[in-house]
Amino acid sequence: MPEHAGKPHAEKETGRLEAFSDGVFAIAITLLVLELKVPDLNLSQVNPATLGKALLAQWPSYVGLVTSFFTILIMWVHHHALFKNVSKCDAWVHFTNGSLLLVVTFVPYPTSVLARYLETPAASMAVAFYCGTFVLIAICFNLVLRAAFRRKLLVPSTPMDFVVKTCRNYLMGPPAYGVALVAAFVEVRLALLICTALWIFWAATIMREQRA
Amino acid sequence: MPEHAGKPHAEKETGRLEAFSDGVFAIAITLLVLELKVPDLNLSQVNPATLGKALLAQWPSYVGLVTSFFTILIMWVHHHALFKNVSKCDAWVHFTNGSLLLVVTFVPYPTSVLARYLETPAASMAVAFYCGTFVLIAICFNLVLRAAFRRKLLVPSTPMDFVVKTCRNYLMGPPAYGVALVAAFVEVRLALLICTALWIFWAATIMREQRA
Amino acid sequence: MPEHAGKPHAEKETGRLEAFSDGVFAIAITLLVLELKVPDLNLSQVNPATLGKALLAQWPSYVGLVTSFFTILIMWVHHHALFKNVSKCDAWVHFTNGSLLLVVTFVPYPTSVLARYLETPAASMAVAFYCGTFVLIAICFNLVLRAAFRRKLLVPSTPMDFVVKTCRNYLMGPPAYGVALVAAFVEVRLALLICTALWIFWAATIMREQRA
Amino acid sequence: MPEHAGKPHAEKETGRLEAFSDGVFAIAITLLVLELKVPDLNLSQVNPATLGKALLAQWPSYVGLVTSFFTILIMWVHHHALFKNVSKCDAWVHFTNGSLLLVVTFVPYPTSVLARYLETPAASMAVAFYCGTFVLIAICFNLVLRAAFRRKLLVPSTPMDFVVKTCRNYLMGPPAYGVALVAAFVEVRLALLICTALWIFWAATIMREQRA
Repeated sequence: MPEHAGKPHAEKETGRLEAFSDGVFAIAITLLVLELKVPDLNLSQVNPATLGKALLAQWPSYVGLVTSFFTILIMWVHHHALFKNVSKCDAWVHFTNGSLLLVVTFVPYPTSVLARYLETPAASMAVAFYCGTFVLIAICFNLVLRAAFRRKLLVPSTPMDFVVKTCRNYLMGPPAYGVALVAAFVEVRLALLICTALWIFWAATIMREQRA
Repeated sequence: MPEHAGKPHAEKETGRLEAFSDGVFAIAITLLVLELKVPDLNLSQVNPATLGKALLAQWPSYVGLVTSFFTILIMWVHHHALFKNVSKCDAWVHFTNGSLLLVVTFVPYPTSVLARYLETPAASMAVAFYCGTFVLIAICFNLVLRAAFRRKLLVPSTPMDFVVKTCRNYLMGPPAYGVALVAAFVEVRLALLICTALWIFWAATIMREQRA
Repeated sequence: MPEHAGKPHAEKETGRLEAFSDGVFAIAITLLVLELKVPDLNLSQVNPATLGKALLAQWPSYVGLVTSFFTILIMWVHHHALFKNVSKCDAWVHFTNGSLLLVVTFVPYPTSVLARYLETPAASMAVAFYCGTFVLIAICFNLVLRAAFRRKLLVPSTPMDFVVKTCRNYLMGPPAYGVALVAAFVEVRLALLICTALWIFWAATIMREQRA
Repeated sequence: MPEHAGKPHAEKETGRLEAFSDGVFAIAITLLVLELKVPDLNLSQVNPATLGKALLAQWPSYVGLVTSFFTILIMWVHHHALFKNVSKCDAWVHFTNGSLLLVVTFVPYPTSVLARYLETPAASMAVAFYCGTFVLIAICFNLVLRAAFRRKLLVPSTPMDFVVKTCRNYLMGPPAYGVALVAAFVEVRLALLICTALWIFWAATIMREQRA
């Protein structure tokens, strides 16, 4: 940010928005660990085996942590790739990006709900709540893209077919996570598998793009 | 910050203050989610419907999270717009800005109090405590403005009428949140509506300014 | 940090250390709020007056929050002022600075202990523990200063009398907080008053220095 | 990050990855303090001596905090030293670095487990879980190194023998922490001693490197 100070009407306005977003992504991704609770065993009767079993029994928490971590990480990489092509930002970019950040900071909560209820009869609702959060994030990502990828805000050299292709790719996000949400009520593992497949897919997308 | 190192008496002194403030804003906005507590249902008798109902029953927490999130976000945008015109800072700017950051880091607490007591007979006090925090923030914002918008600290090219208009706009903050505070004792929803209306208003203000 | 990348043997090595330290200071100062716990009242019998009283009864938490916040803030300002004159850093600077950051991240804990026990018969121990943490911080600050203010690491233009004066000023820190620690066992309020007086004094010191 | 914006195909791509990693390291290192829980004594019967004893009885938490803090700090220093020589990054660097960050954000959890169970009969399992986390981190560090230290990504001037030596040094990490893991089942203190010896060793390594 410092580089904008002193230049009241600087050309490049996205720097501060990007740095702030980076901070929020970094904090949200790190707060995920706070969801893990130390097993509350009877301290006088505990032994290595019971503690080991209790740590293993927390596998739903580990699954949630890993899935949420990589999903947020890939989102951050996409967020950056997206703003690399944007040179200005207006109020609409600020508002849509703010909404995106709101849902990103929210992720640790559905992750906790997932971890607590994944092995209970309410698992389907917990997983649906988790997938629903990603539906919201995917919608927000599309709004940010539509707000930021306007001719007047883009770096002039941005190729038009890149804009078109990116917009088309991002449209897949909401229905894809929507399918995961519906799948949660059929088979919980299927929904989580779709979520995992999706962050791997987004990772592959960005790789292909960067190579091109 | 790195760019100031090695230049013992650098002209531009606000960079470090801005970056530190950005960090505090970003962390405070992300900590809001820690206020959400996973519903503590009986794990053996829970079913998707009861978990769904429990998650919906947390609507006061969601209302608090969204209101606090956007209020802090808009404050951060204003903080930036304000310091864009400031090229130096002295101890008084540091102290007033520090007081502002103190109240900003405090926001997650009244948000938690609001969420816990919004549906109880003590709702009015919880909402008043919440609005009171924003009264304090608005007062601190005016102090920061008064400290930073002094001729000797401003970027020389800053137009005088911009300074006058900004100072006048910010004066509205404390009484506006004061009205919300009083409204809390009449009708809790009215107070929250005012808070929401206010962050939308601040957002509109900054938009109009940036367009001009 | 980005500006150092790609320059394997860059002259200016303190940038990364400063940015990392800034991050730790910003996070530690924001985590203080997590110490505040929402009053746990009976939700069905609560009324605005009882909630108001419960919020007021948390004054020890507010005192702790404000004292710790401004103490960390002033430390951060000093940390910056100090490193503005340092152009290189070696392992010893890294290690002493790391120790300082360790104690800074620790501050939220004694602040919590203080808040919980300030109105109990164990207040003196809680306040002594709190002051003891600041004794440690003051010692670490002296170690950082001694490590960083060596001829070979300083910006060449740094005036020698500035170095001598700064070193002398910082020597006051450990005994000053040591007096507060001892005072805790005589009169708890006196100890807290000394802590408050001290951060005001450090603030005044840095002001005078920057004006000179 | 801001400096890359507007340059869609910038040469230097590691800046954003480094800044994000710095953020995650800084947050993870600061969250360690949240593991410390205020002693829950009977507020009416407590006295300075009992509180003092309770604070001292938390020594396993302090040991865990200090060990984890310095281990993460040294890792951060190594992470920086490593990326100073890397000028580009591709998907494989992103993914391996992401995995490393995942395990780094995880550290506060095994630290809490260690603190809770160090004085119980399950100590060996708690310490093994703690050391196991560092085995994972050491493995991830090797993967990051292998991904980033490829000819096409390195700063052209990087001397080949530096690359070879660094790769060899890092290979020691996994087996060294593996020995600590096994030692946990023989003698808990030995395992913790090895962990402490290791971060001192990594610190010495980086010192020697920087001096050369």
